[in-house]
Amino acid sequence: MKTNKASWVTIPENSDFSIHNIPFGIFSNSDETKRIGIAIGDHILDLSVAASLGIFNLLKIDEHVFKNEFLNPFIDLGKKTTNDVRLIIQNELINENSVLKKHDKAFILQSEAKMHLPVFIRDYTDFYSSIEHATNVGKMFRDPENALLPNWKHIPVGYHGRASSIITSGQDIHRPMGQTLPIGEDKPVYTTSKRVDFELEMAYIIGKSTNLGETLNTNNAEDYIFGKVVFNDWSARDVQKWEYIPLGPFLAKNFASSISPWVVTMEALEPFRVQGPEQEPDVLSYLEYSGKKNYDIKLEVALQPENEAETTISHSNFKYMYWNMAQQLAHHTMNGCNLSVGDMMGSGTISGKSPDSYGSMLELAWAGQKPIKLNDGSERKFINDNDTVIMRGYCENDNIRVGFGEVRTKLLPAKNN
Amino acid sequence: MKTNKASWVTIPENSDFSIHNIPFGIFSNSDETKRIGIAIGDHILDLSVAASLGIFNLLKIDEHVFKNEFLNPFIDLGKKTTNDVRLIIQNELINENSVLKKHDKAFILQSEAKMHLPVFIRDYTDFYSSIEHATNVGKMFRDPENALLPNWKHIPVGYHGRASSIITSGQDIHRPMGQTLPIGEDKPVYTTSKRVDFELEMAYIIGKSTNLGETLNTNNAEDYIFGKVVFNDWSARDVQKWEYIPLGPFLAKNFASSISPWVVTMEALEPFRVQGPEQEPDVLSYLEYSGKKNYDIKLEVALQPENEAETTISHSNFKYMYWNMAQQLAHHTMNGCNLSVGDMMGSGTISGKSPDSYGSMLELAWAGQKPIKLNDGSERKFINDNDTVIMRGYCENDNIRVGFGEVRTKLLPAKNN
Repeated sequence: MKTNKASWVTIPENSDFSIHNIPFGIFSNSDETKRIGIAIGDHILDLSVAASLGIFNLLKIDEHVFKNEFLNPFIDLGKKTTNDVRLIIQNELINENSVLKKHDKAFILQSEAKMHLPVFIRDYTDFYSSIEHATNVGKMFRDPENALLPNWKHIPVGYHGRASSIITSGQDIHRPMGQTLPIGEDKPVYTTSKRVDFELEMAYIIGKSTNLGETLNTNNAEDYIFGKVVFNDWSARDVQKWEYIPLGPFLAKNFASSISPWVVTMEALEPFRVQGPEQEPDVLSYLEYSGKKNYDIKLEVALQPENEAETTISHSNFKYMYWNMAQQLAHHTMNGCNLSVGDMMGSGTISGKSPDSYGSMLELAWAGQKPIKLNDGSERKFINDNDTVIMRGYCENDNIRVGFGEVRTKLLPAKNN
Repeated sequence: MKTNKASWVTIPENSDFSIHNIPFGIFSNSDETKRIGIAIGDHILDLSVAASLGIFNLLKIDEHVFKNEFLNPFIDLGKKTTNDVRLIIQNELINENSVLKKHDKAFILQSEAKMHLPVFIRDYTDFYSSIEHATNVGKMFRDPENALLPNWKHIPVGYHGRASSIITSGQDIHRPMGQTLPIGEDKPVYTTSKRVDFELEMAYIIGKSTNLGETLNTNNAEDYIFGKVVFNDWSARDVQKWEYIPLGPFLAKNFASSISPWVVTMEALEPFRVQGPEQEPDVLSYLEYSGKKNYDIKLEVALQPENEAETTISHSNFKYMYWNMAQQLAHHTMNGCNLSVGDMMGSGTISGKSPDSYGSMLELAWAGQKPIKLNDGSERKFINDNDTVIMRGYCENDNIRVGFGEVRTKLLPAKNN
C-alpha cells in the first residue's frame, strides 16, 4: 500500500499519479482550449482553474502561463517557482479545507481529456548512453570481439534529431517509405520500410536556458533539467543501415518519435537516485562527477496486435545508463553550445544485461534471428502493421510510487504513395 | 552597368541590393525595436513604416507582421502574398510619385542599422550535396580510389544540426573546447580545438509547412522554399574526427553556424536557373526531376587576419551542386517528416573542381599538407585566433545583379575554462 500521505482526492492504489508525483502536462477537454494540468490519480487538476481560485497568489504568476498551449512559459519561471507550485498543489490536495475541494470543475477525468505534446521542443538531441545497447548493436553489425567503438567509453556519444516530428501518446503513425539496399544487391530500392522498430528511451526536458559560449559542469547541470518523460524513438532499421554512413541516422528516425504526455519533475524522482555503474577507464576531467546521478526507474515495453491483448516484451531500467544526465549536459555544452527551455535530450535505447531487458526489437529478436513470441501465438521480428507499442515507466519503494503513465503509438500501414 | 530599371533611390553600381533583388531581413537601429526591412542599395526600407503608409493595403496584412522579431509570420502569409509585397516595393521604388519618396524616415542607412537573425529556425538540416567536396573528403580520409561512399549517388545524404546556435553576420564566436584523440595516441584529451574550419555553404528557408505524414515531390518542392542565404557551417575538424562514428558530427558543428542576414527570395533568383550536373547512375523514381533546378550563384570566401587586409581564398559556385533543393526536399519528406516555416536546409560544403574553388580549409590546405598563403605573407592550415572569415554570394548577368551581401564572423580565442 503506497498511501503515506492521505489526499482527499480518491487515488487508486498503485496509481502512477500519487500525491508524491504531481507531473505537469497540457490537456484539453470539451472546449478544446489547451491548458496546464497536473495528474492526480485518475484525474487532472486544471491549473488554470486552480490559479483563478488564488492558490498560487503568493507566487505572483501571470495566469496566462497556465492557459498556454505548451509548458515552456511555466518552466521558464524557474525551478524555485515551479517547485513551489508543485508543493502548493500537494498541500492543497491533502488539506481537507482546500478551496479546490469545493470546485468540482477544477478536476477532469483523464479518460475524458485529450493530452497534447507538453512542450515546444526547441532542439532535440539523442544520446547513445546504454553500454548494453551499444554493445549489442556492435556485436550484431560490427566486430563481436570489439563491439564498442573506441570513443564510446570516453564520449557520451550523441547526435541531433528532428524536433518537428515528436508527437505524444495516442497519435497513430504510418509505416514510412524509405530507400534501402536489399541484401546481396548493389542497387537501392524505394519501398516501405520492412524493419520498423521501437527504441525504449527516456528523455529529459531542459528547464533553464544558457547563452551561446556558456558551459555547464557535472555539478550544476542538474539545475538545468526540469523533468522526464518516457520516449519511444521509432526507427526504420533497413533505412538506417543504408543511410547512416557517414553522417548518422536521418530518415530512419525523423518520421516520428513519441513521448509520454506527463512531465515528471526531477524533484518527484529525487527519492529514487542510485549510484551509476563504474566507469572504466577513467573519464576526462570535465566528465568526472560525484554523488548518485542515476535513477531507479522501472521501464516496460508491451506490444499489442490489432484486436488482441498486449504482451509485455521487455523489462528494463533507467538505472542501467552508463553516462548520466549531468555528464551528457557537461559534454553537450563543453563547446559553448547553447540550451533552450524545452529542449529534449533522449537517453538512447535503454537495454539491461539480460535478453528480456533489451530495449528494441532489433536486440530482442536479435536482428530477426530469434523472433519474439506474443501471447496470441504470433511472432515478431520487427513491428507489424496495426501493432500498438506501449511503453511505461515508474519508480517504487516501500512507501511511494511515482509513475510516468504510458506512451502508446499504433503503427498504421504505409500510406499509398 | 546593371541599371535596366531606374529607381529614384540611389543604388551604387554593382550593388548586391539592386531593384531586382529586394531581400528581406530583420533589423533595428537606435530605438532597438526589431522589424522587417528590405535592402535597397546602401539603405534599408523599413517595412513597418511602408505598411503604415498604406502601400500594402490591398493585401490586408496585419501590420504586426512587419514589426515581428522574425520573418516567420511574414513568410507564413504564403508565396502569393510575399511576392506581391516584393512587387509592390519594386514598383514604389521606381515610381517617382511614390509616397515613400516623401518619407525619409522609411529609409535607414545599412551602416547605421544592426541586422539580426532573420528567421526563427525551427529545425535545421544540413545536406552533403557537393560531389567535389564529398570526393575530396573521401580521398583524404578514406580510399582515394573509392572516395565516394556507396550510398552517395543514390541518397542526398543529410543529417540534423543544431538550430539554437545559428547566428547571423557580425557576431563573434570563440574557439571551442573539445575532446580529441591526438595522432598516435589511444587516450583522448580535453583541449581547445586546433583545427577550426569554415564550410562554404548556402542554406534555404522553408516557406510553407507540411503535416506529419505528408510527402513532397520534385515538382512541388520548390513551392515550399522561401529564399536563400549564404551559410558558414563552422567545424572543428579534430573534434569531428574523434566523435563522428557512428552517429555523425555533433560538438564539431554545434558551437556556431553563421548565416547572412538578408534572405534573397527564390523569385529574385529565378533569372539565374541553370541545368544541374548529369546524375549517373540514374536516381530512384522519387528523385527524378525535370527542368533547370540549379542556380548560378557565385560564391567567395575571404580570410582577414586581425588588423590586416582580407585575402580571397576561394571562388566557388552554387551551380556545382550534384543534388538540387527539390531532390533534397523530396528525400527529406519521403517518410512523412514534417517541415515548418523557418526550417533551414544547408547545402553542405560547396566545392568546385579546381583547388581554388574548394569550400573549406580542410580541402584548400589539403588537411594541412598545403598551407594557404595570405596577402600579408602569413600562412594558414586552419583558422587562427582573431581571423575573420567572410563569405559573399551574388548572381550576375549582362543586365542585372542580385547579391546576398556577406556573412562575416570573427573567431576569438577560446574562453578560459
